[in-house]
Amino acid sequence: MSELAAASGLPVATVKYYLREGLLPAGEATGATRARYGEEHVRRLRLVRALTEVAGLRLEAVRAVLAAVDDEDRSFHDAMGSVHHRLTGPGAEPSPGAVAQVAALVERRGWHLYEPNPHALALARALDALSGLDRPADDALLDDYADAAQAVAERDIAAVGREDRVAGAEHAVVGTLLLEPVLLLLRRMAQEDASARLG
Amino acid sequence: MSELAAASGLPVATVKYYLREGLLPAGEATGATRARYGEEHVRRLRLVRALTEVAGLRLEAVRAVLAAVDDEDRSFHDAMGSVHHRLTGPGAEPSPGAVAQVAALVERRGWHLYEPNPHALALARALDALSGLDRPADDALLDDYADAAQAVAERDIAAVGREDRVAGAEHAVVGTLLLEPVLLLLRRMAQEDASARLG
Repeated sequence: MSELAAASGLPVATVKYYLREGLLPAGEATGATRARYGEEHVRRLRLVRALTEVAGLRLEAVRAVLAAVDDEDRSFHDAMGSVHHRLTGPGAEPSPGAVAQVAALVERRGWHLYEPNPHALALARALDALSGLDRPADDALLDDYADAAQAVAERDIAAVGREDRVAGAEHAVVGTLLLEPVLLLLRRMAQEDASARLG
Repeated sequence: MSELAAASGLPVATVKYYLREGLLPAGEATGATRARYGEEHVRRLRLVRALTEVAGLRLEAVRAVLAAVDDEDRSFHDAMGSVHHRLTGPGAEPSPGAVAQVAALVERRGWHLYEPNPHALALARALDALSGLDRPADDALLDDYADAAQAVAERDIAAVGREDRVAGAEHAVVGTLLLEPVLLLLRRMAQEDASARLG
């Protein structure tokens, strides 16, 4: 147990908590108070740690993500869809105008999406929030953002295509969730630079 | 108070809570149990709601963002830097290798950043997490992500340049934080589409 904690960089108490919460499978018992843990336990702990500390997920969301990763009866595409859909919770009903704006964007891009699509609904809600603050996101902004988003998404999926199916589900999680903060941090850094040049 | 709640789409109890917590300035008292609220109160409530519901910030982070927005003795660039820096909390010390990889990226891009830069440190921590899961982000990936991030960042800052300075601080918050979920949701949608085409 203490070796497991050291290998994952987590306190022993946290490892015990994850075991109790079922986020980490039990080790192979080798005595009344000892158990053997393997490389897959270390890897799972690193994944849980990265999802909480880097991607900022709450434990409930981590649990949903792990369930999708562990469900081996899924294609990679289904696993990714499941992970995505579990992460976007329900929210207020977006306005018809925002829903139509998102639908038009999807149509312009020629994207084929799961329907009903929770991301499209969440995006419509974000557009409503921006409009409510007198900063509506117009189609030109959405197109520019979609250009950037699609460029990285195509790259992400091409990288996954070379992996096998089972590795794919975890890769989908890592590639989707852990690269999200990477993209946002780079945007903030580039904004700082652009803003400094603006003066 | 009930009109304020209706205009912002929040329950009365939430509006009262935000008032108690100092996230919303007090209204002008017009009697023992009545106060007058203006358009700026509605706008502030919408901002708080968007920061919590759309950008997913906790109240403590919302408070830090509002402090930066309300500090009028700042240039736009300073306000944005302050917002950014308050959002990236302290974390584990990243590995020297990851720090060097980020520094080399910043050098390649020719970015001028605040030093020490909390985003660069957070990015290095994210790279460590990816490496720990056997999915290291190589320089080619970072360059592609930085291309996409910089494209939207240049657009964001150009849009702000046309605003006046005081509006700029709030615009920085809205443009930085509320467009983050827009970018991530579009990436997830584009990933779904690319994954469907892959089969």
